[in-house]
Amino acid sequence: MKRLLEPESLRALARGCAVLGAGGGGDPYLGLLQALQATEDYGPVQLVDIDELPDDSLIMPCGGIGAPTVSIEKIENGDEGGRLREHLEFVTGGKVAALMSAEIGGSNGLLPVAWAARMGLPLVDADGMGRAFPEVPQVTMYLAGISPSPAVMTDERGNLIVFRAISGHWIERLERAAAVEFGGAACSTEFSLTAAQARTATVRGSVSLAIKIGESVAHAYGSPVAALIAEIGAFQLLSGKISDVERHTTKGFVRGSVVVEGLGDDAGRLLRLELQNENLVALERGRVLASVPDLISVLDSETADAIVTERIAYGQRVTVIAFPCDPVWRTGPGIEVAGPRAFGYEFDYVPVEELASARA
Amino acid sequence: MKRLLEPESLRALARGCAVLGAGGGGDPYLGLLQALQATEDYGPVQLVDIDELPDDSLIMPCGGIGAPTVSIEKIENGDEGGRLREHLEFVTGGKVAALMSAEIGGSNGLLPVAWAARMGLPLVDADGMGRAFPEVPQVTMYLAGISPSPAVMTDERGNLIVFRAISGHWIERLERAAAVEFGGAACSTEFSLTAAQARTATVRGSVSLAIKIGESVAHAYGSPVAALIAEIGAFQLLSGKISDVERHTTKGFVRGSVVVEGLGDDAGRLLRLELQNENLVALERGRVLASVPDLISVLDSETADAIVTERIAYGQRVTVIAFPCDPVWRTGPGIEVAGPRAFGYEFDYVPVEELASARA
Repeated sequence: MKRLLEPESLRALARGCAVLGAGGGGDPYLGLLQALQATEDYGPVQLVDIDELPDDSLIMPCGGIGAPTVSIEKIENGDEGGRLREHLEFVTGGKVAALMSAEIGGSNGLLPVAWAARMGLPLVDADGMGRAFPEVPQVTMYLAGISPSPAVMTDERGNLIVFRAISGHWIERLERAAAVEFGGAACSTEFSLTAAQARTATVRGSVSLAIKIGESVAHAYGSPVAALIAEIGAFQLLSGKISDVERHTTKGFVRGSVVVEGLGDDAGRLLRLELQNENLVALERGRVLASVPDLISVLDSETADAIVTERIAYGQRVTVIAFPCDPVWRTGPGIEVAGPRAFGYEFDYVPVEELASARA
Repeated sequence: MKRLLEPESLRALARGCAVLGAGGGGDPYLGLLQALQATEDYGPVQLVDIDELPDDSLIMPCGGIGAPTVSIEKIENGDEGGRLREHLEFVTGGKVAALMSAEIGGSNGLLPVAWAARMGLPLVDADGMGRAFPEVPQVTMYLAGISPSPAVMTDERGNLIVFRAISGHWIERLERAAAVEFGGAACSTEFSLTAAQARTATVRGSVSLAIKIGESVAHAYGSPVAALIAEIGAFQLLSGKISDVERHTTKGFVRGSVVVEGLGDDAGRLLRLELQNENLVALERGRVLASVPDLISVLDSETADAIVTERIAYGQRVTVIAFPCDPVWRTGPGIEVAGPRAFGYEFDYVPVEELASARA
């Protein structure tokens, strides 16, 4: 059965991508506008399950790379996806059969929709994270042993770079340096793979999940936040207002911290979020309430819209939630690539549900 | 008539490349060792005039990029040239017929000899500068309207990048950022061109010239410095000793200044050299004695061996000479690309011979 990403689905998708972005992946509003416009101009994109694609179909994971603080001002021109595809096809000798969001989180869950519409290609109902992470090799394809090369990167001016690096670490270093040179953000594809590989090397069904999350909020009776928490099985960490934001853009990332002051039932409590593009850790009096690879999202307390890190501002009334990541990130290699220590924290990962029950 | 680059010619070439490097292009000693070793292992390289090549022969200009202060410690592994060729051929669909030094100056006049020996390809008797310059687009191919793309860059680890930039400015920015990420130096090819194009877009005969310069010093009767000055028609700016060196490696370049204190006939005089990889300007009491695009070289007063900027040290007895650049750099576009203002100086270029006769 053909499933088309009509404007209504795209709006729900944008909401879901914001929640799954854990603060990162870029502002979904910009991705939504691009996806809506491309859908209007070129028709809606078909969402396909990987099982619908022949084994040897080439899938192009793609999206934006860089600091989200930059990408809200330095906007794509629309051609990037086509250029990535053209050069990926040239260097691989293959033919791209479908696009995939490298990360479902934030704008990166929508940008590939806009590109797919322009190319008349389907979008795969999967992604490489089930969330957003800041670094290039922090994808399930990396865990599955898929090569990040050839990677292709382009900017809105038309510059184009092909990378063949000796490791995921080097792909990250080289792409980050280029993204910085481009002004802090660019578009890229890495870890291109066949449908046969994608069946086990991706987080399946994440586009559908994001749409479902968005719809649960849109159709909520009563509190949207409560509806969202029920839908995804999240833990509410704190409800309050933003009382401090420290954020700087450096070396192709946005880094900093946010303090949330409890209100109502949470009066007297202070929650600290540390971030690198995404919300990495939630701390209360030095105690970890949740950490990567689990997802920490900051919701508008009224609308349940997740607020990306670059839009967090003093005084916003927010509810901070945390919820489990895809199981692949809880394996040994998953934790090594995207657990607390991968971000320089000197503590071990404990699943958010265990942390919650320990507090209860 | 076949001309082979035998060890004796390579030693003369190294001396000449040092002089033509104007302080830059990397330490020729390292390039010489690589060229000698490759010649021993694979046989001598054939030096060909561009006129000996069919019109459609693909020529690959190549060499090192980055800060010479780094490249004397971070040494090539020998495979770089082969990798550049392989990927240039892949992306252009052509077959490289001959290598060419992108710049004849310094180690970059010798590295392509080592690579050519390993590949069994000839070296073209030409280069893209007739000297050394710090930035990628500062080549005669750029002045001739040849595209710098596709450019290929690689490091000693095996990483590989292909750039297709929208301008020479962007090639420089992107390659420089990658070179920095590689640790400050890497190898690259840009401005690949056909023999038909190369006939008018390069500085012809520069390899032969460098060898001739080296031989004039090696076979000098009496003062090697005097023999060298006579051979190239240089102007002696000052003879003395290095009394101050300020040098730092930043953003893929070495920058700084050198003060030379006059001795003997020049006692009481002070000469200041400003440098960015190469010697850019020679000043005395604020007066310009010579500037880019003309060549300024610092010679060992005893041996006439030119000392590259990264080897300049306090106390060295040196003779500073300056001599005219290739005429192409004295045209309007040439001065725009590589004249004093291209390096941030706020004065107009005056040919070294005019400056000398104004002083006389």
